[in-house]
Amino acid sequence: MELSAGKLINLARLADGAGRFFMLAVDQRGSLRQMLARAAGRPPAEVSGADMAAVKARLTRVLAPHATAVLTDPIYGFPYSATLVPGHVGLLLAVEEAYDEQEGSGERRTRLLDGWSVQKVKRAGGNAVKLILYYHPDASAQTRRHQQEVARSAGDACAAEDLPYLLEVVIYPLGGQKADDPDYARARPDLTLRTVQEFSRHEYRVDLLKLEFPADLRYTREFSGGAFDGRTRPPVYDLSAVRVACRHLDEAAAAPWVVLSAGVGIAEFLVQAEIACAAGASGFLCGRAIWQDALGAYPDMAEVEARLAADGVHNLERSKAAAGRAVAWHTHRRFEGQIELAGAGLDWYRRY
Amino acid sequence: MELSAGKLINLARLADGAGRFFMLAVDQRGSLRQMLARAAGRPPAEVSGADMAAVKARLTRVLAPHATAVLTDPIYGFPYSATLVPGHVGLLLAVEEAYDEQEGSGERRTRLLDGWSVQKVKRAGGNAVKLILYYHPDASAQTRRHQQEVARSAGDACAAEDLPYLLEVVIYPLGGQKADDPDYARARPDLTLRTVQEFSRHEYRVDLLKLEFPADLRYTREFSGGAFDGRTRPPVYDLSAVRVACRHLDEAAAAPWVVLSAGVGIAEFLVQAEIACAAGASGFLCGRAIWQDALGAYPDMAEVEARLAADGVHNLERSKAAAGRAVAWHTHRRFEGQIELAGAGLDWYRRY
Repeated sequence: MELSAGKLINLARLADGAGRFFMLAVDQRGSLRQMLARAAGRPPAEVSGADMAAVKARLTRVLAPHATAVLTDPIYGFPYSATLVPGHVGLLLAVEEAYDEQEGSGERRTRLLDGWSVQKVKRAGGNAVKLILYYHPDASAQTRRHQQEVARSAGDACAAEDLPYLLEVVIYPLGGQKADDPDYARARPDLTLRTVQEFSRHEYRVDLLKLEFPADLRYTREFSGGAFDGRTRPPVYDLSAVRVACRHLDEAAAAPWVVLSAGVGIAEFLVQAEIACAAGASGFLCGRAIWQDALGAYPDMAEVEARLAADGVHNLERSKAAAGRAVAWHTHRRFEGQIELAGAGLDWYRRY
Repeated sequence: MELSAGKLINLARLADGAGRFFMLAVDQRGSLRQMLARAAGRPPAEVSGADMAAVKARLTRVLAPHATAVLTDPIYGFPYSATLVPGHVGLLLAVEEAYDEQEGSGERRTRLLDGWSVQKVKRAGGNAVKLILYYHPDASAQTRRHQQEVARSAGDACAAEDLPYLLEVVIYPLGGQKADDPDYARARPDLTLRTVQEFSRHEYRVDLLKLEFPADLRYTREFSGGAFDGRTRPPVYDLSAVRVACRHLDEAAAAPWVVLSAGVGIAEFLVQAEIACAAGASGFLCGRAIWQDALGAYPDMAEVEARLAADGVHNLERSKAAAGRAVAWHTHRRFEGQIELAGAGLDWYRRY
């Protein structure tokens, strides 16, 4: 299959020599503020933008050199970390601001960051655009249309700039369910699969999918005894069913995909990464599982940095090892065996 | 000093972790055609574009992984090598087509490649624009103005795209002199220095200078016995004078600079790289010195490839070692001790 020059060159920048994505996320905003507030024993409003920026700069400086790419945000992240992105490490920039929760239904609608754009990501030297999209396939038609339209617009803008488009789709509980309910755990494989099916449609022009692990490992028979957080839960499936769910996800994904950590602990993420990559994932884009424990020392920045250098790097290296059998992105079936430059020929430069 | 986001991120992509540029040039066109014709015993017109493209693809595949960046052209190079540029290796693309030699005077005026542009370099994922400019400070005012205008326009276009601008300035003999004359050898330090002074003016907005070695080592007392090509020449200076010329060049250069090989052999280039970097250069952008010998086997492509893998890689590694003390680009005095992102702050994303 053919890929345009900007998509091809920039996708390669995100991966290692074997086509595997071992990417670090430091683009958290709300969740980071909460984390720092909790660690410092302050209300979130007393964690300033400068505080967030300082933490992100440390995360980037210590961890990014060990990743194949780093995802950051354009408010607290990039402006304070631009000089800290190593030359051999790819750069992804987020374009969303947050989501608005609809009153009553709790449905989530993405809001892009006003004053920022896909064009600016390209201009600033980003190698890819990241958009997170909360989605529930059974949300109202209006909410689904809104989310689909946001995803489609970003895809069009990325195509216009010839820049890779990484779409992160994340499901969430609706109708009174909670994230840690057995019912929601049971529903996750199906909700994730249907969401991936939607955004694998050609019209979204996605180059890389960032996907949640399609099950809750804490509700598997094998890990239900509290393996990750000490709490016993009623099992709703077993690991073989989870492996099947991952393979279904891989079959549905019309583009190479990476797994995200969604705030789970490192032990759980290592299992997720192993299973996802065995099912066809091309690596991970992971943040909190790697560095959240180090932030427990906040506001002692020297201790935060020491923990990042010790445990954070260790977690990242372990994640890379767990994802070692990630599938080279350029071997994804969408490329039909070989990637070629679109329009290659002696007159490429004229027609491009 | 402040650097804009696109300049900062993309300059870093060209260098290694220590800020040194070990860059490979495969953007030759006319000289490559001549080389292949000679090796194959054919007239240059019988070397096809496909032949050139095939050779460039081999050069890129075998050598680029050992460089910090690769410079190629958009006709025979990039369209056939885009899938061969490793993700951790920066990409520079040339924008000139050739020069027109003025009848009578022999003055050279650069012609840009029609249908190609700085905008397309950015779009395609290039990390920098390369423009070669032949220049003689004593050429006619008209020719000088033409060249200055070409250089300035490219600088403006790169600023508009927020893309690094690498300007290569190369002097040439006028007024009946020949490249291998003692008189021309004697004139080189002064001609090079005056040329660098011109293009170091702020109005050209150059981010990186690619400079010729400012003397002919074959005319130094120490190497005049035929050290590089077996031919004895009358010495016109000695190495200490050459080192002084390099330091003057470094003092005149208003931006980080790299040394080019201009078709000299590898033994001579190693000495040039060592002296240039000791005088302040930030590395090299070198082509023929590294790979020209391997092309002697053309059209036996298997043998070309074998020689590239053996001698070509060896030459590149030796060049990196010779340039090992290259000055980190970000420590250049233009940056006044520290590089900062222009406009850094929580509202950077809005104002960028």
